[in-house]
Amino acid sequence: MNNFEFYNPVKIIFGKDQITQLPRQIDKKNSVLLIYGGGSIRKNGVYDQTIAALAGYTVLEFSGIEPNPRYETCLKAVELIQQNQIDFLLAIGGGSVIDATKFIAAAARFTHGDPWTILSSRAPVRDALPFGCILTLPATGSEMNSGAVITRQATNEKFAFGHPLLFPRFSILLPEAAATLPPRQVANGVVDAFVHTLEQYITYPADAPLQDRFVESILLTLIEQGPKAYANPADYSAMSSLMWCATMALNGLIGCAVPSDWATHMIGHELTALHEIDHARTLAIVLPGLWRALIDHKTEKLAQYGQRVWGIEQGTPRQIAEEAILRTEEFFHSLDIPTRLSDYGLGEETVQNVVSRLDKRGWRALGDRRLATPEIVRLALGE
Amino acid sequence: MNNFEFYNPVKIIFGKDQITQLPRQIDKKNSVLLIYGGGSIRKNGVYDQTIAALAGYTVLEFSGIEPNPRYETCLKAVELIQQNQIDFLLAIGGGSVIDATKFIAAAARFTHGDPWTILSSRAPVRDALPFGCILTLPATGSEMNSGAVITRQATNEKFAFGHPLLFPRFSILLPEAAATLPPRQVANGVVDAFVHTLEQYITYPADAPLQDRFVESILLTLIEQGPKAYANPADYSAMSSLMWCATMALNGLIGCAVPSDWATHMIGHELTALHEIDHARTLAIVLPGLWRALIDHKTEKLAQYGQRVWGIEQGTPRQIAEEAILRTEEFFHSLDIPTRLSDYGLGEETVQNVVSRLDKRGWRALGDRRLATPEIVRLALGE
Repeated sequence: MNNFEFYNPVKIIFGKDQITQLPRQIDKKNSVLLIYGGGSIRKNGVYDQTIAALAGYTVLEFSGIEPNPRYETCLKAVELIQQNQIDFLLAIGGGSVIDATKFIAAAARFTHGDPWTILSSRAPVRDALPFGCILTLPATGSEMNSGAVITRQATNEKFAFGHPLLFPRFSILLPEAAATLPPRQVANGVVDAFVHTLEQYITYPADAPLQDRFVESILLTLIEQGPKAYANPADYSAMSSLMWCATMALNGLIGCAVPSDWATHMIGHELTALHEIDHARTLAIVLPGLWRALIDHKTEKLAQYGQRVWGIEQGTPRQIAEEAILRTEEFFHSLDIPTRLSDYGLGEETVQNVVSRLDKRGWRALGDRRLATPEIVRLALGE
Repeated sequence: MNNFEFYNPVKIIFGKDQITQLPRQIDKKNSVLLIYGGGSIRKNGVYDQTIAALAGYTVLEFSGIEPNPRYETCLKAVELIQQNQIDFLLAIGGGSVIDATKFIAAAARFTHGDPWTILSSRAPVRDALPFGCILTLPATGSEMNSGAVITRQATNEKFAFGHPLLFPRFSILLPEAAATLPPRQVANGVVDAFVHTLEQYITYPADAPLQDRFVESILLTLIEQGPKAYANPADYSAMSSLMWCATMALNGLIGCAVPSDWATHMIGHELTALHEIDHARTLAIVLPGLWRALIDHKTEKLAQYGQRVWGIEQGTPRQIAEEAILRTEEFFHSLDIPTRLSDYGLGEETVQNVVSRLDKRGWRALGDRRLATPEIVRLALGE
């Protein structure tokens, strides 16, 4: 096994009626800024429960965080923080709100220049406001990691960043709050968690048998529980498992000692930036094509995935790998998630634009073993 | 899924040459007390590497921690701490040394009475010296949790205790250091980790499919890698996986939202206290008998274990459960670990003594659903 470090101090508080735990988690003397998106938390009761739990605290609010949260919006929250005494941030919502809160927490305490440089040139974060999360939507895993992705609207760019100071102090995970989600968002969540898991697995054998089996555990559970949660978001049992899978998919554990890929994410980010396709849906477009283009390099792990996750027993490793890609597409289709650019009316021009945008960034380390070259990306996105 | 909390802030630093990371983990101004057992760390190079890494620190030493670490010995370390300025403890060894260090850390800062009450009457820990670990032996998982077990020699009693203040600040896991272990200790480690995992699994279905699969992942990996590490402790690949499995078996993760049992451990502790049988070996004696005595109550999880871990496909759930118990015994035997009291020349008198000792403690909550009654314990330990 390769050397590794693992550190994840996020306290998870999972289940029903857990918002009542808030006063145990935040010092009473703190002035708290709630950060959320649109109005959904006002409809599903989470907002009211939060306000009730924070009785006696000084509470301010900042709403309007978008899906694919925007740098410009985050800066407005930072301004609000600079004009008021704020000691603690509380993100309420899904991954977008949590990602935005991470950037706001870092930017509010960034004293050495333009906070844009945190994103554009990975300027080091040296301090951050403490924050907690109330998660209402299973998908990104942001509730238990220290990374985030922010979009700058002005330039149509998505940037990832992260720092150990940006681990949430706690995350309250509420499967019940996801009961009223539109099924489309549940399907997106399943695919997002599924692909997060695969990005840390479909690489090459790396002598990490426990990590491999943990990955397969998450995939099998998503295949078993994801469609139930999609069919009925109010199925508490299925939604609980989906939410816990999504958290475990990106909290660092399955990535210990193994190579990872993330080319699907990098390419997908460009599709979201160019065409505002939901993040998870871009992953479903990119992943199968990328695997086919790289099958010679990924046969062993694809075949292991085919055997252990999809139960494919017959065939050569190559045949099992090909069948595993087909099963993955079928799984996405079963959640009504398309897997072709043409399903969105897009074609050669988009492929060209994606390749140009990646070109501009210099193709640094795209994919495991830097396998995702411009030619491979063209193949992956082609029909 | 049931509500749960999960919190584990231990930083894991895993692999080769990782002792060199020590100066990054401990403030230079700290005066450090090394705590270890016998002389094995002087033979395998770990002691020398630690001293080299801590050049420039004030370093004191306390050695002589026993297997099944003793309260009396811990108190001597506390005395040493009270006579010297010590800011940080560094446990070097296996679970016994780490457990002892946890008690020492708590007792050294215990200001409200006799530290014995931490064990005897669960007096609350309100402060503890910070400590880190260098793990040289895979087994107990103590390196990534906040619990410990201490024996009082005078009364032949083993007590478990724990507190969130007793999480190690970091644990450096060294599979290489385990290369020179006697095979007997490796076998003990495999069985200890295996039974820790099963104590959180062979209960009853609890709607936690991801946790179940994580458990099965650990068991499958122990079955695959454990015998290789036993056959050749210098097999770095196998020892790495064994070490990581043992850590994951008892860091809280697989216990999220599920019932646990621990009757095997409670009964096993009495056998160790009475007859000084190695901890893991007591578990191998108790577990199969206890399962047979409780098979009516545990059929569902035993059958799931038989199917998913041992690949038993034919038979009724009851038959699969019975076969799974046999396979478990065979696995222990393959590691040269006996599974009967009579293998140690013990019989009815010991059974009676164990039952009396458990009687004295009041049978509070022994086993999941308190199923392990005196009659069941007699059945479990009988031939």
